[in-house]
Amino acid sequence: MSTNQLDKKSEAWSALFSEPMSELVKRYTASVFFDKRLWLADITGSLAHAEMLAAQGIIGAKDLADIQRGMAQIRSEIEAGTFEWKLDLEDVHLNIEARLTQLVGDAGKRLHTGRSRNDQVATDVRLWLRDEIDLISDLLKELQVALVDVAEQNVDVILPGFTHLQVAQPVSFAHHLLAYVEMFSRDAERMADVRRRTNRLPLGSAALAGTTYPLDRERVARTLGMEGVCQNSLDGVSDRDFAIEFTAAASLCMVHISRFSEELILWMSQNFGFVKIADRFTTGSSIMPQKKNPDVPELARGKTGRVVGHLMGLITLMKGQPLAYNKDNQEDKEPLFDTVDTLKDTLRIFCEMVGGQLNPATGAKEGGITVNAPAMEAAANKGYATATDLADYLVKKGLPFRDAHETVAHAVKAATSHNCDLSELPLAVLQGFNASIEKDVYECLSLRGSLNARNTLGGTAPAQVKSQIARHRARLG
Amino acid sequence: MSTNQLDKKSEAWSALFSEPMSELVKRYTASVFFDKRLWLADITGSLAHAEMLAAQGIIGAKDLADIQRGMAQIRSEIEAGTFEWKLDLEDVHLNIEARLTQLVGDAGKRLHTGRSRNDQVATDVRLWLRDEIDLISDLLKELQVALVDVAEQNVDVILPGFTHLQVAQPVSFAHHLLAYVEMFSRDAERMADVRRRTNRLPLGSAALAGTTYPLDRERVARTLGMEGVCQNSLDGVSDRDFAIEFTAAASLCMVHISRFSEELILWMSQNFGFVKIADRFTTGSSIMPQKKNPDVPELARGKTGRVVGHLMGLITLMKGQPLAYNKDNQEDKEPLFDTVDTLKDTLRIFCEMVGGQLNPATGAKEGGITVNAPAMEAAANKGYATATDLADYLVKKGLPFRDAHETVAHAVKAATSHNCDLSELPLAVLQGFNASIEKDVYECLSLRGSLNARNTLGGTAPAQVKSQIARHRARLG
Amino acid sequence: MSTNQLDKKSEAWSALFSEPMSELVKRYTASVFFDKRLWLADITGSLAHAEMLAAQGIIGAKDLADIQRGMAQIRSEIEAGTFEWKLDLEDVHLNIEARLTQLVGDAGKRLHTGRSRNDQVATDVRLWLRDEIDLISDLLKELQVALVDVAEQNVDVILPGFTHLQVAQPVSFAHHLLAYVEMFSRDAERMADVRRRTNRLPLGSAALAGTTYPLDRERVARTLGMEGVCQNSLDGVSDRDFAIEFTAAASLCMVHISRFSEELILWMSQNFGFVKIADRFTTGSSIMPQKKNPDVPELARGKTGRVVGHLMGLITLMKGQPLAYNKDNQEDKEPLFDTVDTLKDTLRIFCEMVGGQLNPATGAKEGGITVNAPAMEAAANKGYATATDLADYLVKKGLPFRDAHETVAHAVKAATSHNCDLSELPLAVLQGFNASIEKDVYECLSLRGSLNARNTLGGTAPAQVKSQIARHRARLG
Amino acid sequence: MSTNQLDKKSEAWSALFSEPMSELVKRYTASVFFDKRLWLADITGSLAHAEMLAAQGIIGAKDLADIQRGMAQIRSEIEAGTFEWKLDLEDVHLNIEARLTQLVGDAGKRLHTGRSRNDQVATDVRLWLRDEIDLISDLLKELQVALVDVAEQNVDVILPGFTHLQVAQPVSFAHHLLAYVEMFSRDAERMADVRRRTNRLPLGSAALAGTTYPLDRERVARTLGMEGVCQNSLDGVSDRDFAIEFTAAASLCMVHISRFSEELILWMSQNFGFVKIADRFTTGSSIMPQKKNPDVPELARGKTGRVVGHLMGLITLMKGQPLAYNKDNQEDKEPLFDTVDTLKDTLRIFCEMVGGQLNPATGAKEGGITVNAPAMEAAANKGYATATDLADYLVKKGLPFRDAHETVAHAVKAATSHNCDLSELPLAVLQGFNASIEKDVYECLSLRGSLNARNTLGGTAPAQVKSQIARHRARLG
Repeated sequence: MSTNQLDKKSEAWSALFSEPMSELVKRYTASVFFDKRLWLADITGSLAHAEMLAAQGIIGAKDLADIQRGMAQIRSEIEAGTFEWKLDLEDVHLNIEARLTQLVGDAGKRLHTGRSRNDQVATDVRLWLRDEIDLISDLLKELQVALVDVAEQNVDVILPGFTHLQVAQPVSFAHHLLAYVEMFSRDAERMADVRRRTNRLPLGSAALAGTTYPLDRERVARTLGMEGVCQNSLDGVSDRDFAIEFTAAASLCMVHISRFSEELILWMSQNFGFVKIADRFTTGSSIMPQKKNPDVPELARGKTGRVVGHLMGLITLMKGQPLAYNKDNQEDKEPLFDTVDTLKDTLRIFCEMVGGQLNPATGAKEGGITVNAPAMEAAANKGYATATDLADYLVKKGLPFRDAHETVAHAVKAATSHNCDLSELPLAVLQGFNASIEKDVYECLSLRGSLNARNTLGGTAPAQVKSQIARHRARLG
Repeated sequence: MSTNQLDKKSEAWSALFSEPMSELVKRYTASVFFDKRLWLADITGSLAHAEMLAAQGIIGAKDLADIQRGMAQIRSEIEAGTFEWKLDLEDVHLNIEARLTQLVGDAGKRLHTGRSRNDQVATDVRLWLRDEIDLISDLLKELQVALVDVAEQNVDVILPGFTHLQVAQPVSFAHHLLAYVEMFSRDAERMADVRRRTNRLPLGSAALAGTTYPLDRERVARTLGMEGVCQNSLDGVSDRDFAIEFTAAASLCMVHISRFSEELILWMSQNFGFVKIADRFTTGSSIMPQKKNPDVPELARGKTGRVVGHLMGLITLMKGQPLAYNKDNQEDKEPLFDTVDTLKDTLRIFCEMVGGQLNPATGAKEGGITVNAPAMEAAANKGYATATDLADYLVKKGLPFRDAHETVAHAVKAATSHNCDLSELPLAVLQGFNASIEKDVYECLSLRGSLNARNTLGGTAPAQVKSQIARHRARLG
Repeated sequence: MSTNQLDKKSEAWSALFSEPMSELVKRYTASVFFDKRLWLADITGSLAHAEMLAAQGIIGAKDLADIQRGMAQIRSEIEAGTFEWKLDLEDVHLNIEARLTQLVGDAGKRLHTGRSRNDQVATDVRLWLRDEIDLISDLLKELQVALVDVAEQNVDVILPGFTHLQVAQPVSFAHHLLAYVEMFSRDAERMADVRRRTNRLPLGSAALAGTTYPLDRERVARTLGMEGVCQNSLDGVSDRDFAIEFTAAASLCMVHISRFSEELILWMSQNFGFVKIADRFTTGSSIMPQKKNPDVPELARGKTGRVVGHLMGLITLMKGQPLAYNKDNQEDKEPLFDTVDTLKDTLRIFCEMVGGQLNPATGAKEGGITVNAPAMEAAANKGYATATDLADYLVKKGLPFRDAHETVAHAVKAATSHNCDLSELPLAVLQGFNASIEKDVYECLSLRGSLNARNTLGGTAPAQVKSQIARHRARLG
Repeated sequence: MSTNQLDKKSEAWSALFSEPMSELVKRYTASVFFDKRLWLADITGSLAHAEMLAAQGIIGAKDLADIQRGMAQIRSEIEAGTFEWKLDLEDVHLNIEARLTQLVGDAGKRLHTGRSRNDQVATDVRLWLRDEIDLISDLLKELQVALVDVAEQNVDVILPGFTHLQVAQPVSFAHHLLAYVEMFSRDAERMADVRRRTNRLPLGSAALAGTTYPLDRERVARTLGMEGVCQNSLDGVSDRDFAIEFTAAASLCMVHISRFSEELILWMSQNFGFVKIADRFTTGSSIMPQKKNPDVPELARGKTGRVVGHLMGLITLMKGQPLAYNKDNQEDKEPLFDTVDTLKDTLRIFCEMVGGQLNPATGAKEGGITVNAPAMEAAANKGYATATDLADYLVKKGLPFRDAHETVAHAVKAATSHNCDLSELPLAVLQGFNASIEKDVYECLSLRGSLNARNTLGGTAPAQVKSQIARHRARLG
């Protein structure tokens, strides 16, 4: 077995260097403490590369077998927690390669033939991210199902729909929840788009210009389940679009989470009292004994900033970089990793907070959101939520919409001065505003009448909401 | 003809309001000065809405005809510059509706039946953005073609490929330009994805809950060439994902522009001297008579910040907003408009700066980038760009890659101390590092030998580059 | 009078250029459309420069007189709106210089002696921003005064203090408003810090290296009221720290505005009903006749994104730029201008919305925020706001705080199950939780008792609040 | 010793809660894994609080002694690494408090009297950040000294000064380095400003409204070396301005680092070759044996994005939050901690990379930047760097500056066509452009003549540079 040049890295990078890297610099530039989480992708990518090298006759069958044996050993060491990660070896790639060479000798030194760390790390990150996107997509689906579940139980519950946080029109609480299903379904669409652009193979780009070995890059792509091959080696090693694009999609998803959180926090405030979340998602106060705080939605709202910050960091990172690989790119990993972790944790916790946990005894979910329907309906009665219905009523009597709108403004003004709802004004008073008003007006002034009347595609009428639920059920399988 | 309630808006919003909006507030809240650019989308959307209202019997045929006549008149007034935009009427929607009612009376007042400004503005912005995306996609294609054109003329020109801005390996200048073609082609993919999610119809969501009128929303969508209908009214009026997603895609595109600009600026610096751009893209100095500054790429690099800023602004805007529409959303327009303008202007100017202008006399393009091939090749000779080739040579002689790498480091050290290139070391000296080295080594130490050797998919060998050019030609039509 | 070289700029920059700038490029690179707002600073700076040139004998007395005469003429032309701004002349500087030369001939051509547009524009922006900071500081003071005014009238009004939007402890509404006074007072401190670093003179840095003329830069600084001179010419022309620092301070101020807006919007929602703002700060809905929407606070909340976006844009702009001046820097102006405009407009409108307008007849302010004290107090009675007081009561009886906290948790649980407040539990029941509880407990369980008890520096007791108001009055003069 | 309620936290927060927090939620909401680094500030703050409680007679002398004893024990446990941090106890505060109560019983439970975690954490972060700012200020000073040291050795070294990365005018390399001294000195000013606003005491604000105990907050402030007391309790617990302001100041500092890094990377590129940094700050390539890459400046440039991302994250976090404390605020810590770490590491490594390390044997610094003066001077000779000097020469002969500028443009054009420098044109040829040119022109056309001529305050003449160095030496002590 030959000597292992990588083992001497603590002395100097190569014969070209007159002194070893300073300890300060090692810590500043090393990535192994965070990029070791890529180890499985790194081994997977290396095995696909080695298998192709052998198939192309670039390394021998014995070399391949040695590499496979060594990698199996390394895999079990890492899984067992016995693998020793070394700062001197900078990153996950050199740590694994050095250990491989320790284990299997020259075959290990042959593994790097026809590749560079530049294309290797790009491959690792893409493989890793692709699999994380799949987990995120599953969670997005699970969250949609949880929302549809709660919606289904609340089709007939009336919530005051707000615009400008002023009572606007009554809506079905289910309809409101389904708005979030739309958002998370768009997030899933975006994740699928990002996956497509992530799942392409840079390996074979080598340092920046391709290699002198007769690689079969498409074979490696197939082995790794990738959809294509990066067609330009300079682009292959320097492209971080997929990381930015993923973080942008994650930011949008967190913006949706922040909007839902804002509403949950409002709804749980004593002045609303619309919903409760289970105690296990809340905390108390170290000083105020009466407190039950909605920590989870608040923290999720706060974590939006974290993910958005990562997006801004990544864009700033790439701005103005000349081709091809620059060391700046190493800074892509931590924000990407933290974005993935934050998004997964947040989605997972929202799935359970909204939909509850499976009770194995009953097979049913328990402990999700609790809805206070009377509080919602009482609030819907506060702000003349059916004023538009009165205007629509007048339009059906022949008034142009703009005139009907102005007539109702007068009626609302009168009701306000009497401190009563429109539906509490006597018919004679209403007729004072427009003579065509008849007794049937009171039906359209009721919350439920208003709700039922919005019965077009996308509207809040329970019939529409039910058909949307059915559509989502079909779509979400 | 009835009185026009909108004409009284300067007095008070409606009977409900005890005082008119203050002048300060009008200016602060009005959007007409920037949203009037949506006028054509607004009219197009209104006509599709009116046509559907008539088809559904919600308004009469006479009303539709009046509306169509009035809108034709308004369109010609706006095009002629004679339309009077009024601050008192807040936005493009009320300005057009008020004028319509002036022109055609009650039919104008009926147009707003079954809709709200909330779904109207969302529809307008989507229609407008969809068409702008189409223009941007065309420009992205044009820029790719310009790059491929220049690449085609420079397949055999050797550029020092850099990593870490240190000379790495020789690459074809064409290959380098094609890296940008990859980037802009991904941008075009992203724009197509955004278009799909933009081209959906919110109209019919009304204020937030749908309407009481029997609208046929899918008919309106078909009329407007939209691919679908927003399925939830609350989401329909409050969703701004498409604006954020577009701005994120635009930011990535500007990041690519910033990278290319950085390189152009470097390449034009006296210490490189690799390319020139035409004088009409440069400026002089008010004080230094010798200056010719690459203003256009510098400004483009700077404008990256502008677009990224808009992305940050839009995300901050939406973070934590409760459903459904809030006035905050009005702030979506200026950043979106400026992003579109900046991106289009930048792409347009890069098309011409790279590819030149069509000379109508010759039918050829003139005045694009001028390439200084000798300067590029001289620079490629500076940094031991073929050292990797020597290592690969040794691998082919049987050395493991890691050992070959270390051997070459010694050779480079020797060449450095003799202040010469590797190819200038005598054979005997080279053999001192490894006895297997033979005379044929000098071929692999030449720039052109190195270039030709990287002949795998995505590599820089001229043969590969030519086949990529052919692929792009086919793809770009 | 000699020929004016600047007049030929539409032909070519100078003899060195073979073609004029393309129209596309002119529009892309010209700044005159936005930087012309710097005209007064430009003239002021030029006059100070000319006066010094004459004092140093670099230009003659006649030249100075000509320049002063010409500039007076230009100033009156600009004020009268008759000055013709030309795109061909790129920016405010060349437009004014070209007109000056038209008016006064050679003296105009001498003005640029010893300076460059690089130091000129940096001087202009600093002069302009310094004066804008003074206006902003005045507005910050005015807003603090308005808040203190409203606070003074509401010292004894009880608001439910929230943490996590859950009722926490009763606070004086005045105390709550004074929290914002603290924020805006920190904003004013920051503006003063930024002003100090803005108010330094770059003029005399010339293009980048200083000049060959015997300038007296400190004289110019004194003339312009600047506190010092940029000590390094390379830094002088390329430093944009002051713009970024200002935008960061503005972003923080907008974050405070966004927090206050969020609360105003909540407080105006029907479920709170704590305050009203005057009708002239609200708008109606095009569809819902009953709506009065808090447009101003919503838009202000939204505009936070705009300013934060500008901060992000400016940082991205400067990141990674080599020294000295690069054209990228031109992109500093629009975000800076828009930040100033947005901040001033927002502060101005909040001053009036909070504090009202002066009624010239009565000399009093009218039409500010209207407070609904009973609604606030009713809300404070909902969430066991005095539970901490009970714990403190038990501590005074000798219990360690942690044990008292747990005892009260039991009491709150009991009260919740009886659907009553702690103060509504009979003494015997309370004594069941801890035998030391006596009749005087009911005093500490009252909202007002709780309020009065927090009587240490910074606490909410009316006595403390009054002393804070006095402090602010003294401070704000 | 009484039972310790905090020990039961894994069961439920208090009697009020029907179930313990879920494991998922614990991990999501716990901060102990990152906020434990605040332990020393937490103990310091607690001791100051306890000492005041005793002085005010709120707790007994025995309690204070117990607390002091317990805290000493905890401090030694943490320093020894034997302290057991528990996830169930959420954060650093409860972990320490629970251990204290374990150690000293009831006295531990009394420590929290008159405070809340809300004001406690705000105090801890401010104390911690204040001390970190002091470390950063020291590093900023050290970096300035290193730059001045290198400058002093290079006053007479001529560098081509660039604008637009085009050769502009010759500058002293020392002058160029001093531009960065100006930047870092402004950074230090900003840090001092931030320190002032950070070093104020929130403790005593309690949960949000102050406390019912007769605290002496000013005493605590004095004990902790703070400059003042937060004057409003609601603001005290919710203010995170100092974190945002610090991160903004850090972002600006990183922008300066990114600009310097960009230049170092350029200067080390083979086409410049202006400087070298020591091998211990560089790395090799896994594939290209000849590479020595400037990893440290590249990574520093990249880390700018990281810090800017944190700034954006923090602003997004605070945007639109209602008063007072919300759980979102917990997200302030990780970005703040990482900003401090990144900035300190970067400054430390730049100090050594620029200035070298102290050789204890010689007492001199070794291994800093190596300057290649001939390469710089050769580059300065490439781009007609003295053209402005010729224009100034003509002005002194009586030409107006604008005419002189145009004349020189012609001369440059001629020299370009002869492929020579201006100083290589024969006198007769120069006189052809303007008859007043005499033999002395060649002095002003030399690089050194040009350099020496810029001898006004802030200019690049060696005399000026020396006086700046003296000023910095005096200032930096």
